[in-house]
Amino acid sequence: MRLAVIASGDELTTGAVTDENSAWVSDRLLAIGGETVLHLTVADGIDPLIDAMNLAAARTRFVIVTGGLGPTADDLTRDAVCQALGVGLVENPAARDRLHAIFKMIGREMTGNNRRQAMIPAGATLIRNPIGTAPGFAIEYAGAAFYFLPGVPRECRLMMEESVVGMIAAAAAEPAAFGVRLFRTFGMTESALDQELSAVALPPGVRLGYRAVVPEIHLKLYGRGADGATVEAALNEAAARVRAKVGGVIYSEDGRSLEEVVLDLCRARGIKIALAESCTGGLVAKRLTDVAGSSDVFDRGAVTYSNRAKTEMLGVPAELIREHGAVSAPAARAMAAGLRERSGADLCLSITGVAGPAGGTPDKPVGTVHIALADAAGLWDRRFLFARAERAWVRDLTAQAALDLIRRRILGLEI
Amino acid sequence: MRLAVIASGDELTTGAVTDENSAWVSDRLLAIGGETVLHLTVADGIDPLIDAMNLAAARTRFVIVTGGLGPTADDLTRDAVCQALGVGLVENPAARDRLHAIFKMIGREMTGNNRRQAMIPAGATLIRNPIGTAPGFAIEYAGAAFYFLPGVPRECRLMMEESVVGMIAAAAAEPAAFGVRLFRTFGMTESALDQELSAVALPPGVRLGYRAVVPEIHLKLYGRGADGATVEAALNEAAARVRAKVGGVIYSEDGRSLEEVVLDLCRARGIKIALAESCTGGLVAKRLTDVAGSSDVFDRGAVTYSNRAKTEMLGVPAELIREHGAVSAPAARAMAAGLRERSGADLCLSITGVAGPAGGTPDKPVGTVHIALADAAGLWDRRFLFARAERAWVRDLTAQAALDLIRRRILGLEI
Repeated sequence: MRLAVIASGDELTTGAVTDENSAWVSDRLLAIGGETVLHLTVADGIDPLIDAMNLAAARTRFVIVTGGLGPTADDLTRDAVCQALGVGLVENPAARDRLHAIFKMIGREMTGNNRRQAMIPAGATLIRNPIGTAPGFAIEYAGAAFYFLPGVPRECRLMMEESVVGMIAAAAAEPAAFGVRLFRTFGMTESALDQELSAVALPPGVRLGYRAVVPEIHLKLYGRGADGATVEAALNEAAARVRAKVGGVIYSEDGRSLEEVVLDLCRARGIKIALAESCTGGLVAKRLTDVAGSSDVFDRGAVTYSNRAKTEMLGVPAELIREHGAVSAPAARAMAAGLRERSGADLCLSITGVAGPAGGTPDKPVGTVHIALADAAGLWDRRFLFARAERAWVRDLTAQAALDLIRRRILGLEI
Repeated sequence: MRLAVIASGDELTTGAVTDENSAWVSDRLLAIGGETVLHLTVADGIDPLIDAMNLAAARTRFVIVTGGLGPTADDLTRDAVCQALGVGLVENPAARDRLHAIFKMIGREMTGNNRRQAMIPAGATLIRNPIGTAPGFAIEYAGAAFYFLPGVPRECRLMMEESVVGMIAAAAAEPAAFGVRLFRTFGMTESALDQELSAVALPPGVRLGYRAVVPEIHLKLYGRGADGATVEAALNEAAARVRAKVGGVIYSEDGRSLEEVVLDLCRARGIKIALAESCTGGLVAKRLTDVAGSSDVFDRGAVTYSNRAKTEMLGVPAELIREHGAVSAPAARAMAAGLRERSGADLCLSITGVAGPAGGTPDKPVGTVHIALADAAGLWDRRFLFARAERAWVRDLTAQAALDLIRRRILGLEI
């Protein structure tokens, strides 16, 4: 099941915008057994697009095309398809009605250009766009099945999920069902995971893939079989075997991010969190509050970048910092304990470290990080060394490690 | 000067990784007059790469190829080139010496696979890799000039800057010099900027481009002329005219980010900053501390997400919050003033707002944000309404507006 993805638009070929649709579409179709062999990105225009369509059709059976369906003069995808096939544009009644409804809702006059968005090449099948004005369409050309979608990532993705994935699966007509399972992990390297899991016997039809999404590793199980029930059973079996080996580092199986998992765990238990951050400078607080509704759980953060702030905001004794240094286990513990005393939050986490590039010493090289946790049951601390990492990496790894420590503490895993 | 960019690698076609090199390379070559008409991404393998090379050479004069130069078995770019041209691999003495030096430095044994990295196709010109083990090379094929570079973005970019841009400019042999100026702006939309600047007469050979890099707009002046001095003079003249029209929203002309500009302005004046963030949840502190050396300037931050935290950490009276609400000008002012009193920092900024999606009211819809500034000279506040924006946008726009207010306050611009 060979596929190609074409992206169209001057903003992509000139490099003003990075094309993220092609990778997303390919990754999505991998889950139904699609093998993408070619991405093509071409400038706006009829000739470049027809050229790309011919190249793709000569090499693959299915082609997804994104971009060029908007209302402006440089949106020429419809015209290119008409010219390639020698057909005209026809108004699609469903698309027209939807367009009228949208313009009525937003109270704007519809221009002739807008009206063009309800027209698709004769013989094409409409692909509904549930959130935008530009519908997509599917049509056969030069021996390949083409699916045309808007370039707006949110629309493209939704229409893939809602329509195109199913259309391709049906058209591929392979006597097979597909399934995929995603495990998000943190705490083991890709090679360490591979070493653990290479010994795991996977059921027939299941294969395992890795993807480094710094600072995480995502594991994916791809299942393929005669029917849905067989694939489900095989994936369940494989998932159980993976969990048995590396379950502790798997923090989500449903796509949730680590901050979402932490917030959900806390919310379910009525736990309020407070943070004291030094080297991460607010990054952990930022990540938690990226999530809507985090105010249920997240009470406050103290970004104590200077030593004086550690003393004034958290009550860390100045003499403790003088004796042990601001980057030390005693300082981290005093930060977490002081924050708990002052905030009354159930679970307080503190971070102090050397993010670099400057500030490292032989004893405490760049990448040295101390994290402490305080709750009603006690006070814990851990030292990390994120060696040979750039500043941004040290900070990202530290924030991830901090969130994972909260998760592990709440679940009663080793910290 | 038509160009194509080829990216090679299974991790790209399967969508495991998004190709960022092609957009970067295209954008970089635009500055020397290069017009990229095609991006091609192909899977690992000799045949796919030769296919892509033929497609690119038939359509363009210059082709940049990234990826497939590493030491492993699926790094087949060298072999594809040899097969396409019917030549063999030869060891390059400079590349071999460099490889030996690297392996000596890191104290590892060199394997046969590593040794292959010092070999390039016969007749090719070496392109030095100053930071990695895989050198690149340039060679003519099928009427086009090809430049092969590693897929590692940092290596690819450095080798473009250090070698390939100059090689292409020389090979293009157009009797022209090129130059580019970048203005980073915040505070006007792309269409507002366009309206102001479309009336500006630009000197001959200079054109103006826009690029939205949310939440900023980048302006670029592209200059082209008979020689370097002419281009410089024309760009200087154009830059002066742009500054005269929209100087207030230009925050950097040297590529520095807004946080770097703010830190540099403060450092030069010995100003210490403290932050009190509610709806941004630490995002502004995170951005400032992304920059190495920010501890000179940034003293502390209070992420006061709950109302109690605003009272306990900043001394905002509970009755003030009850009367005006936590999202209000009085609350923002009390946060900034309270932080200044407690921290002693020279300049204190506070943020309180409704990031959404929940929490909006008819009076204070989602996107309502109050920012206040306190320094020795007084206390200011501003209200923003980032309407119809998603949570992440509200937060990003707010953080940007906050940093820009600090910049404007320090420079004595209207706030």
